[in-house]
Amino acid sequence: MVSPELVTSASNTTLKRLRSLSQKKYRRAENLFLAEGLRIVTEATEAGWTPRILVFATAHRDHPLVRRLVQLTLHAGGRALETTPDILSTLSGKDNPQSVLAAFEPRPLSLADLDPHSAPRWLVAQSLKDPGNLGTMLRTCDATGAGALILLDDSADPLSVEAIRASMGAYFTVPCLTTKWPDFLTWLRHTPPAPRSGERGVEDNAKRQRRLAQRAGVGASPPSSPTLIGAALDPRARPYTHTPYPAPSFILMGNEQAGLPADYRDACDYLAAMPMLGKADSLNVAIAAAVLLYQALAVQS
Amino acid sequence: MVSPELVTSASNTTLKRLRSLSQKKYRRAENLFLAEGLRIVTEATEAGWTPRILVFATAHRDHPLVRRLVQLTLHAGGRALETTPDILSTLSGKDNPQSVLAAFEPRPLSLADLDPHSAPRWLVAQSLKDPGNLGTMLRTCDATGAGALILLDDSADPLSVEAIRASMGAYFTVPCLTTKWPDFLTWLRHTPPAPRSGERGVEDNAKRQRRLAQRAGVGASPPSSPTLIGAALDPRARPYTHTPYPAPSFILMGNEQAGLPADYRDACDYLAAMPMLGKADSLNVAIAAAVLLYQALAVQS
Repeated sequence: MVSPELVTSASNTTLKRLRSLSQKKYRRAENLFLAEGLRIVTEATEAGWTPRILVFATAHRDHPLVRRLVQLTLHAGGRALETTPDILSTLSGKDNPQSVLAAFEPRPLSLADLDPHSAPRWLVAQSLKDPGNLGTMLRTCDATGAGALILLDDSADPLSVEAIRASMGAYFTVPCLTTKWPDFLTWLRHTPPAPRSGERGVEDNAKRQRRLAQRAGVGASPPSSPTLIGAALDPRARPYTHTPYPAPSFILMGNEQAGLPADYRDACDYLAAMPMLGKADSLNVAIAAAVLLYQALAVQS
Repeated sequence: MVSPELVTSASNTTLKRLRSLSQKKYRRAENLFLAEGLRIVTEATEAGWTPRILVFATAHRDHPLVRRLVQLTLHAGGRALETTPDILSTLSGKDNPQSVLAAFEPRPLSLADLDPHSAPRWLVAQSLKDPGNLGTMLRTCDATGAGALILLDDSADPLSVEAIRASMGAYFTVPCLTTKWPDFLTWLRHTPPAPRSGERGVEDNAKRQRRLAQRAGVGASPPSSPTLIGAALDPRARPYTHTPYPAPSFILMGNEQAGLPADYRDACDYLAAMPMLGKADSLNVAIAAAVLLYQALAVQS
């Protein structure tokens, strides 16, 4: 039946399933995640995503964007549920009720799907804990044209309601994946430069250190070799305004509390420090990432 | 009695008072606001603030920093309450229990207390709604050496638990006040430049428009006349990297949803736009403010 289903009970089985998606284990089991709000769900569809399940409030069923979402969802074999604002609000963690909520299937993405030479800037975050920071960083990646947000180690889940909400829809436009540090490094250092110039071996650490020591600044390195830039208050760090950002540059942020571990810093081509003029010795990680991404964008433009 | 009081009941009258401080009306009535966590409360005391009421968990009473806080509080005539972690957690909105929580008296601050020439950069936010953004902006003001965060119109309360928490203690180091747009403009435009060169009249709007039209770039204006720079995607805006930031520069951010109203834009000396390369047409307001403040810092350094 290609028409919306009317749901009048908050204990409806499908609604229960959708409610369970606030927990990571159910997101995995159901292979679904939630996005709230007409604007975000519409932006998702504009970016080529289609809801598997769409829920909308009766009062909004004649809204042109809601009608379009219903048609899209049903046409692609998904389900559209019409319900009351009260029942809809039981699905949302947000105070202000939404007119629309949708469950999407995640798209598995791995490093092998990404070409480091396909974008001039990238964002990498290690053990990022706060889903709000994660979503904000996705939004900044979108604005600065970053190739992806690569999450390392035990970072927050980008599919959580909080992360999707904070991303304001940028999850649907910015590639995002979670991987481990050794796998990321291997991918970064093994990927041949573009245009491809044949097989390229992995540098051993000593050789790389010598090469880096010879680097004077922008352009001193082969322009298309990926550059890893760690954000760190470190004696070896240079001011972020004096750091080169050759394309492609990978900006690496450490965990909110602990910053970048020593071995992660050691593996970076450059360490970049931001001025801290105040009494506090730290910045919000999403703030620091944005300042560095915008600096890279300004230098590369 | 100059020693901590032991509190064993969650319904203790003082604890009830402290709990009520999650609401703005009780913060006003009690003339108190809450800060959570040993780190933030310690930073507050280092910045010259003393708790009126300090609550700490028994398990932490021998911690040197906690003992110091207790002494400071009692010595200044405040109260120190020792209690259980469970009771302490009833005071906090945070998931992870804190060892310490303190109530401070706000310090009323008005524009008359601020000298626009006392700092090269300032942050102004209009109708800022999210306390998390507010706290993050305070933290960025601290890091970039901004003179104050000036909140316009119906902005969020900087004394809310969420704002203080997101500021990570920066509330105690960065002057913050709430005022109205006309009062702010009068203060900004009437304040004589430093060094003082006698009485200075208010420009009428037409005169100011002519002067602004003549401005070619950095240095074209008297260096010490406050410059108001609005963040806006506006046809008149120039790229933020090509905007001058003469000291003192006031960076003006609009509301999270609506941006800067037209008349606020019209009153700015410059409008600054940030590149938006993605599908979304907006950035998180705290992110945008940080990129502009760091740009001002870089240009002014």
